[in-house]
Amino acid sequence: MSATDASSTGAPGTPLTTDESLVDQVRFDDRGLVPAVVQDAAGGAVLTVAYMNAESLRRTLETGRTWFWSRSRQEFWCKGETSGDRQYVREVLLDCDGDALVVLVDQHGGGACHTGTWSCFSRTVGSGPGLPRPDPAPESAAGPTGR
Amino acid sequence: MSATDASSTGAPGTPLTTDESLVDQVRFDDRGLVPAVVQDAAGGAVLTVAYMNAESLRRTLETGRTWFWSRSRQEFWCKGETSGDRQYVREVLLDCDGDALVVLVDQHGGGACHTGTWSCFSRTVGSGPGLPRPDPAPESAAGPTGR
Repeated sequence: MSATDASSTGAPGTPLTTDESLVDQVRFDDRGLVPAVVQDAAGGAVLTVAYMNAESLRRTLETGRTWFWSRSRQEFWCKGETSGDRQYVREVLLDCDGDALVVLVDQHGGGACHTGTWSCFSRTVGSGPGLPRPDPAPESAAGPTGR
Repeated sequence: MSATDASSTGAPGTPLTTDESLVDQVRFDDRGLVPAVVQDAAGGAVLTVAYMNAESLRRTLETGRTWFWSRSRQEFWCKGETSGDRQYVREVLLDCDGDALVVLVDQHGGGACHTGTWSCFSRTVGSGPGLPRPDPAPESAAGPTGR
């Protein structure tokens, strides 16, 4: 990274306040991985799905930036370290059965995808009208995380 | 399902307009599965992460409701068929490398989680301030899907 890059995009993250009892409840699969759904805290878009092992989850919590495990390259990677498209973490959420994470981030730079789009999910396989609810959703459904 | 349940929550879904060339680009893993991130089209919450095989993706596209493959029970399941907490599909999106889906839905009933919460992601492993962008996000970041 050049000095220019470092000064414009190189702000450090802030370590997260962590519930260690919940860290212990993350269930990694037989490859030692858990899928991490990265969501834009501002706009709500699902940006990418990547994978964390125990060490990359630890690094994420301790640095406040997203660390993943690359299955293809078999190495750790910190999002945006070379591209500048960094992700600063606001929340790490665990699901009911402990085998998936949501990571809410402030996405910096041009977006999350290496193809140059904001989200990696830019291709529409199918679309339809859905079926809007006839009644209001519960109050708990409000907000980007629906909690 | 009782007759009462059927009349109040049993509306059929609408088949999706489907891009078959993109269906062919879905890369299922060595178990024949792809992770599907189910997102609330209204509020933007990530509701759950489940898994689809080729047949459950096909059923989802053809029925307009979410069909998954249960890894624990080794069977198909259609979300809400017994609980009434149905998911009516608006969009199925594929990511850049073809190995993850986002499914935007109208969530009916009390929510997506069997524990009674709106989202399955109701436990906070870590939280922090993130780092809000110093500049506006690209226009492409607007909207729940950020496209």
